[in-house]
Amino acid sequence: MGILIQNTLAVLPEGKKDRVKKANIYIEGDSIIAIDDLSKGSEPKAPEGFKADKVIDGKDKLTIPGLINCHTHSYMAFMRNVADDLSFMDWLFGTIDPIEQKMTDEDAYWGAMLAITEMMKSGTTCFNDMQMNIHQTTRAVKETGMRAVIGRGLVGSGDDEGGRMRINQALEEKEAFADCDRLTFRLAPHAPYTCDSAYMRIVADEADKYDMGIHVHLSESLSEIEQIREKYGCSPIVMADKNGLFDRPCIAAHCVQVDDDDIEIMARKGVSVVTNPASNMKLGNGFAPIQKMLDAGINVCLGTDGAASNNSLNMFHELSLLTLIHKGTGKTPQCISAEEGFKIATINGAKALSMEDKTGSLEAGKKADIAILDLKNPSLQPKNNLLAGLCYSANGSEVDTLIINGQITMEGRKLLTIDEELVYNKVNAIIERMGLDKKEY
Amino acid sequence: MGILIQNTLAVLPEGKKDRVKKANIYIEGDSIIAIDDLSKGSEPKAPEGFKADKVIDGKDKLTIPGLINCHTHSYMAFMRNVADDLSFMDWLFGTIDPIEQKMTDEDAYWGAMLAITEMMKSGTTCFNDMQMNIHQTTRAVKETGMRAVIGRGLVGSGDDEGGRMRINQALEEKEAFADCDRLTFRLAPHAPYTCDSAYMRIVADEADKYDMGIHVHLSESLSEIEQIREKYGCSPIVMADKNGLFDRPCIAAHCVQVDDDDIEIMARKGVSVVTNPASNMKLGNGFAPIQKMLDAGINVCLGTDGAASNNSLNMFHELSLLTLIHKGTGKTPQCISAEEGFKIATINGAKALSMEDKTGSLEAGKKADIAILDLKNPSLQPKNNLLAGLCYSANGSEVDTLIINGQITMEGRKLLTIDEELVYNKVNAIIERMGLDKKEY
Repeated sequence: MGILIQNTLAVLPEGKKDRVKKANIYIEGDSIIAIDDLSKGSEPKAPEGFKADKVIDGKDKLTIPGLINCHTHSYMAFMRNVADDLSFMDWLFGTIDPIEQKMTDEDAYWGAMLAITEMMKSGTTCFNDMQMNIHQTTRAVKETGMRAVIGRGLVGSGDDEGGRMRINQALEEKEAFADCDRLTFRLAPHAPYTCDSAYMRIVADEADKYDMGIHVHLSESLSEIEQIREKYGCSPIVMADKNGLFDRPCIAAHCVQVDDDDIEIMARKGVSVVTNPASNMKLGNGFAPIQKMLDAGINVCLGTDGAASNNSLNMFHELSLLTLIHKGTGKTPQCISAEEGFKIATINGAKALSMEDKTGSLEAGKKADIAILDLKNPSLQPKNNLLAGLCYSANGSEVDTLIINGQITMEGRKLLTIDEELVYNKVNAIIERMGLDKKEY
Repeated sequence: MGILIQNTLAVLPEGKKDRVKKANIYIEGDSIIAIDDLSKGSEPKAPEGFKADKVIDGKDKLTIPGLINCHTHSYMAFMRNVADDLSFMDWLFGTIDPIEQKMTDEDAYWGAMLAITEMMKSGTTCFNDMQMNIHQTTRAVKETGMRAVIGRGLVGSGDDEGGRMRINQALEEKEAFADCDRLTFRLAPHAPYTCDSAYMRIVADEADKYDMGIHVHLSESLSEIEQIREKYGCSPIVMADKNGLFDRPCIAAHCVQVDDDDIEIMARKGVSVVTNPASNMKLGNGFAPIQKMLDAGINVCLGTDGAASNNSLNMFHELSLLTLIHKGTGKTPQCISAEEGFKIATINGAKALSMEDKTGSLEAGKKADIAILDLKNPSLQPKNNLLAGLCYSANGSEVDTLIINGQITMEGRKLLTIDEELVYNKVNAIIERMGLDKKEY
């Protein structure tokens, strides 16, 4: 199918910068096949043989690459607002773990469906997940047309039968990814406090053997740092590096409590850091030293974390936090500009997922992963400096149309691949069954 | 006219707490005349003689008191995204001041109209403004049905003719408020670095003579603190107190750089502090010590500041920042709970504006200032712990219907008193005329 987005404003890369330009965007099948830059008053010129089965009127619209949510736990969406105002370890072991014990496969599926609903409605076209319920998430991703990298959650110790079994399971689950090119598989050793040193090494070796990427939580809370220092005499970053995790393409989530040595290691080893500002604040973990990491040349990308600790999966919200909080902590208004923030939420995410040739920017030859925003919203008016608008004033509800892999999955804010009402009914039924519902009516 | 909001979930005060309950809300004229608490399965009982000319179906809706934006400069909305990544003094004197020199009365009017458009669409029913263009803002408020407190901006020195003239003008302008009970007048001496000590005293005396409240910027940036310490040998808070500002009902905006003595003075004098987290971060000023102020018993309320320094007037965005950032700076997830945050965004604002008998909560006898949110949004699903949802996951676009002073000003997200399209055309024309437009297309 051919889609033409006609006469739109679009965020296009120009060298190392992004620029808002007037453009026509031509989509054929799953890909962007051409972009006409109309900013200098030039005439549009459709590629030869292109036939638009569908024309999207770009007037008063801003077309951007879909946002890339580089760290979430999609199934957790049904746990939104169940566990607030708790310290990290109480939150994880006291509240979330017991819920997960009661969770069925169907619960995980509907959690993932709610997550995808929220992400699509706020302009996200790809997410990087971490969890155990692989089949339920692949099912949701396949049905909805989403793009995702799914990291198989692993916990264990080197001499633990269960840990080895989970790796074997993971390798079997990988097969379910073969028939869908929107899905990529990774191994996700949970964290240094749930995977011991020997187990980390086993996971890294398996990842190497089967050419897989890694997704891991590192240096999230002070209590983690204390625990790992006590056990191994080093930081979680050093522990992960020693066991080979950084010798694979690796996304490290959080990295809040890192020192200069940690940063130097991650920069040297090409680790991508995914920062999750809302979750880090909400759990009282603090602020990751993002400016330092950027200065060291680390590829920083952005994630929401799960809805149990954020409690939102809206990447516009996260982008706003990213571009505001470091100006506050560093007392420097120049820190993480809108332009830098937008790259962190898009192309840097694609790089982190080893997909920069596929998504993360509007360029001919890439997959058509596109969000189209309606500028007739007060948050984007007047229409000047729209890159700033995307970070500082948009809230995500301006996203009118979403295209993933060439498929229109939302139009006029109506999802075309998801029955929203059904999703809401299902997730409410889960929390009622589990007795999590805090309603008093 | 009688309005019945039927069978809704509603945030209702219960003692010192807010609770989500099932309710019927009865509105007659400009006021809430009764609320049926249906949470215990009790039958609804309309007040005697009540006739509903309009019934709003409350199914899958959450009804809340309208949010109160306690610090903004509404005319600035047309300056959204014109001046980013600048230090506070460069921002104010290098960019904003020159724009204001070129601003016409009509510009100020359309700026206010854009501000009101954005505020209404994100659930705000009352705002506390500071500026010089009083007549343009009263015009916008009168036409749109908004509620506002407008502080007449004043700058000057004790021996300055102009400063005295502006006070006389202000007293004349006050007359324009007489015919609209949604409007309240205040005097707004701009800040200690633009009003000298003698002028502050004159303003305080006039406020006393005519029984008016005060709205002032205090202790926003470190450079302000240095400047005032050098000139007066004390903090801006002490300077304001010495000159009588705190002997009137006083709202002090920002208070980022305050010490324990400052906090003690403001608590003792009953000053309300309006915190503006986005603006304070964006201009690199940092984080106000809000938890300390709350602990000292200060009435803290919430504001967006103007769209030139935020760049959003969406109080849901601000509420999310308020309830997240202090958990981050204090490394305590218990800091400023959702329940506390919601009070800060509603009833505390009403208290600050001396309006707690009139607005800020859903109670019989108060004016009908109400936002009705559509729960069929992923951000508020599943429907548990909706107070947390309002702070941590809502983005403001869930507001479906808005009622101010008993008048429905928005329904199904369509504004009934504002021609949105016209507002957008006008504000774009302003920035084009001024050459502020950063578009490159």
